[in-house]
Amino acid sequence: MKIKPYLTSDLKKLRRGPAITLPKDFGIIVAYTGINKNSKIIEIGTGSGFLTVQFSRIAKKIITYEKRKDFADLSKNNFQSLKLKNVKLLNVDAFEGIDEKDADLFMIDIHNAHEIVKIAFDSLKEGGYLAAHCLSVEQSKLLFLECKKIFKEVFMVETLVREYDVDELRTRPKHIGIIHTAYLLFARK
Amino acid sequence: MKIKPYLTSDLKKLRRGPAITLPKDFGIIVAYTGINKNSKIIEIGTGSGFLTVQFSRIAKKIITYEKRKDFADLSKNNFQSLKLKNVKLLNVDAFEGIDEKDADLFMIDIHNAHEIVKIAFDSLKEGGYLAAHCLSVEQSKLLFLECKKIFKEVFMVETLVREYDVDELRTRPKHIGIIHTAYLLFARK
Amino acid sequence: MKIKPYLTSDLKKLRRGPAITLPKDFGIIVAYTGINKNSKIIEIGTGSGFLTVQFSRIAKKIITYEKRKDFADLSKNNFQSLKLKNVKLLNVDAFEGIDEKDADLFMIDIHNAHEIVKIAFDSLKEGGYLAAHCLSVEQSKLLFLECKKIFKEVFMVETLVREYDVDELRTRPKHIGIIHTAYLLFARK
Amino acid sequence: MKIKPYLTSDLKKLRRGPAITLPKDFGIIVAYTGINKNSKIIEIGTGSGFLTVQFSRIAKKIITYEKRKDFADLSKNNFQSLKLKNVKLLNVDAFEGIDEKDADLFMIDIHNAHEIVKIAFDSLKEGGYLAAHCLSVEQSKLLFLECKKIFKEVFMVETLVREYDVDELRTRPKHIGIIHTAYLLFARK
Repeated sequence: MKIKPYLTSDLKKLRRGPAITLPKDFGIIVAYTGINKNSKIIEIGTGSGFLTVQFSRIAKKIITYEKRKDFADLSKNNFQSLKLKNVKLLNVDAFEGIDEKDADLFMIDIHNAHEIVKIAFDSLKEGGYLAAHCLSVEQSKLLFLECKKIFKEVFMVETLVREYDVDELRTRPKHIGIIHTAYLLFARK
Repeated sequence: MKIKPYLTSDLKKLRRGPAITLPKDFGIIVAYTGINKNSKIIEIGTGSGFLTVQFSRIAKKIITYEKRKDFADLSKNNFQSLKLKNVKLLNVDAFEGIDEKDADLFMIDIHNAHEIVKIAFDSLKEGGYLAAHCLSVEQSKLLFLECKKIFKEVFMVETLVREYDVDELRTRPKHIGIIHTAYLLFARK
Repeated sequence: MKIKPYLTSDLKKLRRGPAITLPKDFGIIVAYTGINKNSKIIEIGTGSGFLTVQFSRIAKKIITYEKRKDFADLSKNNFQSLKLKNVKLLNVDAFEGIDEKDADLFMIDIHNAHEIVKIAFDSLKEGGYLAAHCLSVEQSKLLFLECKKIFKEVFMVETLVREYDVDELRTRPKHIGIIHTAYLLFARK
Repeated sequence: MKIKPYLTSDLKKLRRGPAITLPKDFGIIVAYTGINKNSKIIEIGTGSGFLTVQFSRIAKKIITYEKRKDFADLSKNNFQSLKLKNVKLLNVDAFEGIDEKDADLFMIDIHNAHEIVKIAFDSLKEGGYLAAHCLSVEQSKLLFLECKKIFKEVFMVETLVREYDVDELRTRPKHIGIIHTAYLLFARK
């Protein structure tokens, strides 16, 4: 029984520490926020840097905050191994304040996501998106309700991808697979 | 009962003709193929141009083929309304041959997808992806088996996105929604 | 766009008041609790009586409690129209106490499900199941945690059924459908 | 990583040979066909007898056909270990003809399901259901098209059940699980 995370070749080279954001969730974030080659992204909670690496293929610039020294070191090594040029990693607690303004996307991957909503709002340009990768209903609900207070549009989804086995005689989904990764929350300024 | 397709603001401005590729499927294609700002994409079957528009945010260049005059006109208008600079639209039947080489992604959205596999293979660079948006198991199976003959890695998935209703008292998925759009097939050279 | 609830012919004859439990959820309850022709079922929250009718096909006896007079009248009419012989309907608040003992299944379909857990436990035979049809994560979580305190085994699921369109040329799931009905909670004594 | 099939206590006692029909699929068959304590079921392809055992809790009588001697012996032992009284097992090839008439459900679990449709139709009472547990799109499509020729109503579904992890702080689906078991086909006479 092999469970495929569909990592692209760049991601396969990276070292893992904390739980990573899988390509399927990265894809939905790209698709629903419309980020592009002109986008500036602020990311809170670099972790292993997998999501940062995926964003770096597309966006103009990513400023990513990681308060834990060990995670910052891990992701720094990952970024260097891929020679990324458009990622700025700060080993800083984002709650101490963020100077960056006019972000197109404010990406959150920390447990207390709901506490950073005001900071996110202030860092976003008009029409920009807050997005969050949430590991429980409780976490995403807190964030949802907090976002509702100041953002124009808020929605929350989850994504399921199923792979098929196909041969001459038989087509059917694989029996065992990933049935959940995360709740994704979006809020538009 | 409102079914949301999660169209970004650029897509909302477009006119629709034939069935479009929704953001969720675009997102999975981006995530699983790793396309980026250096990518060259060849697309067969422009249709209304919704997928082309989404690719144009990210890729360096998209060359898109549409043999039907009415669809080519429709998508041309859509591209002009958004002032896209990196899309080249050809009102040409791709089966007559494709000059472009070294594509990072060869995207197929036509009924007889399996008949263009050899042309796709020849147009791709080493490591590049064929991807296809298929409307039935039969279509995707034919394509899968054809790809298996010449590509290194072939896989087929489908994606389900569910949105949640959230308020102070109650969190739960919406009752009615999109339960299927398309099968996505990927083949790596 | 027609959304099918897969009602069997008996259910199609009934009148509806409050939200009903659909066949798919009834089926999972039957399958996971193992109820059979010797089973005694206590049901709290008769509502329109749709779940009661489905149970009545299988179980030996169902004692169903409905405190609201209007719902009790509605379900009474439904039961009479089908001439059910093994259903005892009580227009009584179950929180006032339940005399019945040794139930094989204690089925809950009320908002404050978590408050009736002790009563449920006392009414069940060893090895019997509490089951609940919950309309939100919040409701099912409260119930889950309460059950954890006194039941041996507790689990919670949700069920998705997709229907396919099939013809000579094309097999694929319908595009629009029911993506959520309820969370089902099970606790074994 | 533990994948739960939700077997009831009777099923846990049984020995397994060929692939079994899981409780979730049994539940949907019960729910969509409305079988009950007065039902007569004909089953083709006994296999390990897991589905037969589940039906035996509910139906009046099950006549089950298994042409392979080894499977018939296996299921016979399983039925004896549970002391089932309402199951008649025939180590006979059903294609040689079925004497039973007026069945409420004709359950098929063999590869060449589409070849037994006429026999099924003749054995069913008016309003009775053919149901089939199919392991591929190809198999279920052949059966679907064959049923369309003589049955009033034909439909095909698949069922997904997800289990949740719940504790004080966090509610979310398990990450890994069963994402597919079978396609279920129903045809009503």
